[in-house]
Amino acid sequence: MAVTELFAGVDLGGTNVTVALGAAERKIPTDGHEGPEAVLARIAETVRSLGGKPKALGMGVPGLADLEAGTTKFLPNLPTQWRDVPVRKILGAALGCDVFLLNDVRTATLGELVHGHGRGARTMAFFSLGTGVGGGIVVDGKLRLGPLGAAGELGHQTILPDGAACSCGNRGCLETLASGPAIAAEGVRLLLGGSAPRLHALAGGDASKVTPEAMARSGDPAVVEAIARAARFLAIGVANAIVALHPELVVIGGGVAGMGEPLFGPLREEVARRVGGLLGPAPSRIERSALGDRAGIVGALALAERGGKV
Amino acid sequence: MAVTELFAGVDLGGTNVTVALGAAERKIPTDGHEGPEAVLARIAETVRSLGGKPKALGMGVPGLADLEAGTTKFLPNLPTQWRDVPVRKILGAALGCDVFLLNDVRTATLGELVHGHGRGARTMAFFSLGTGVGGGIVVDGKLRLGPLGAAGELGHQTILPDGAACSCGNRGCLETLASGPAIAAEGVRLLLGGSAPRLHALAGGDASKVTPEAMARSGDPAVVEAIARAARFLAIGVANAIVALHPELVVIGGGVAGMGEPLFGPLREEVARRVGGLLGPAPSRIERSALGDRAGIVGALALAERGGKV
Repeated sequence: MAVTELFAGVDLGGTNVTVALGAAERKIPTDGHEGPEAVLARIAETVRSLGGKPKALGMGVPGLADLEAGTTKFLPNLPTQWRDVPVRKILGAALGCDVFLLNDVRTATLGELVHGHGRGARTMAFFSLGTGVGGGIVVDGKLRLGPLGAAGELGHQTILPDGAACSCGNRGCLETLASGPAIAAEGVRLLLGGSAPRLHALAGGDASKVTPEAMARSGDPAVVEAIARAARFLAIGVANAIVALHPELVVIGGGVAGMGEPLFGPLREEVARRVGGLLGPAPSRIERSALGDRAGIVGALALAERGGKV
Repeated sequence: MAVTELFAGVDLGGTNVTVALGAAERKIPTDGHEGPEAVLARIAETVRSLGGKPKALGMGVPGLADLEAGTTKFLPNLPTQWRDVPVRKILGAALGCDVFLLNDVRTATLGELVHGHGRGARTMAFFSLGTGVGGGIVVDGKLRLGPLGAAGELGHQTILPDGAACSCGNRGCLETLASGPAIAAEGVRLLLGGSAPRLHALAGGDASKVTPEAMARSGDPAVVEAIARAARFLAIGVANAIVALHPELVVIGGGVAGMGEPLFGPLREEVARRVGGLLGPAPSRIERSALGDRAGIVGALALAERGGKV
């Protein structure tokens, strides 16, 4: 019977939760203001509604989690912040299965490693550009988590020593320069300043409709340059990871990666300019995530299948 | 008989070569203008003069080497640059033993890992501040070399995106800001500008006698601030390595580390300021190399003892 082989995956976000059981999948609202118990009860119910009892469940969470203990430590983007929530105990009791927790971007890194561009890669760096900038590091085919599960936080590399304040307490982090909101803000500045007529048309003149994707489509020269500038900051973070680890592969994921060539062109050029002298003209392959916004749920299933061994 | 257990180590520098056979050691001039064959013949002769036949020889070289092939790739600081010199073949034939080559700073990292602060460490980052800034990365108790032996080049992280040109072809590398020459140049500027009276006295008014160590001893307020500024740049490189890998230990070696507290105080403070919000107040232990300028030769012996397995 296939039943004993079923695994469940959960990708917990601030707005939605994606729940998968084998190939079946459902997206439900997070409604995080109701607190962890209610959210976890809805997740368990959704797993059951998908029609089976999983052997194990893997879950990516937006923040820090203790993989050993199966508890969240701190999820800054959820209303009640989920400090020390015993998710393994609660979901494990509700579903009668093992439960494994991991930071959501490290979960996406695992997805990319197992089912994306990283198949067969020994050393890989993953950058996820979304509301924030997260990351993950793979060495010898294994995710590197560090003692707090916080290794791989590549979005908190310092790019501008005296740059803008970051939510982490530092200044000038990559996240302040290449996250979705950071890039969109530059688009808004240009739109409001009158130097982005096509973006203005695409957004119907509404600054709140400016997205990195709309910016990439606009083709306004000033917008193209703003995207290239963000790409060059990203390139510094990528180049720093390359000189440290010389990974065979760097994968860029998250919503911002959907900008495509206007981002990736200047990114690859600037990385070559920064590390080409040291490592030659093609230092590390740089790819857009093969899984896109599915990397997280694919990684959560892989986490369950691997019994938490990453 | 102890003879079968003797190992040899060589630390090849631009000016001197240190040769060790077990506990015996000798330093000879490099005289690099004579070319690789003459230098290697002198090294073999020195090993023999130390009184034994080694089972294997480990050698750290100032540049890129191919550990698998036992050849140098490019030693930029030696007059003839040693491109593709088959050191294993030449020295192996002369001494009748296995020969293993490694970049000198990765060799020093191995020394620190095996016999210094790194004993028992699983994850470690090593920064060597000398004429240049080199580095090494240890993950799971093993040196990470990458496909070209160039992983761990932490001195070529970009710290100032539009900073000074670096010898590697990039701009604003850590090496342009925290190497011995970079720090000494700031001391010279202050001495010549008249704002470093004690450093002026220590150097006998001679700008060519300004060293990082003399600067650290001077206590001139302007010099103290210049050192702290370099330390804060170094801290960015250290903090970037910490967010990527969260190593349990960061070791600072090379001659500049001899500056002591005027460097290490601001370094530790700035690292805590940059990553403390993410990783807590004591993110990674930061230590001055336990082996100092002996890290290289100690590592070369360890390389031989391990049969090139790092």
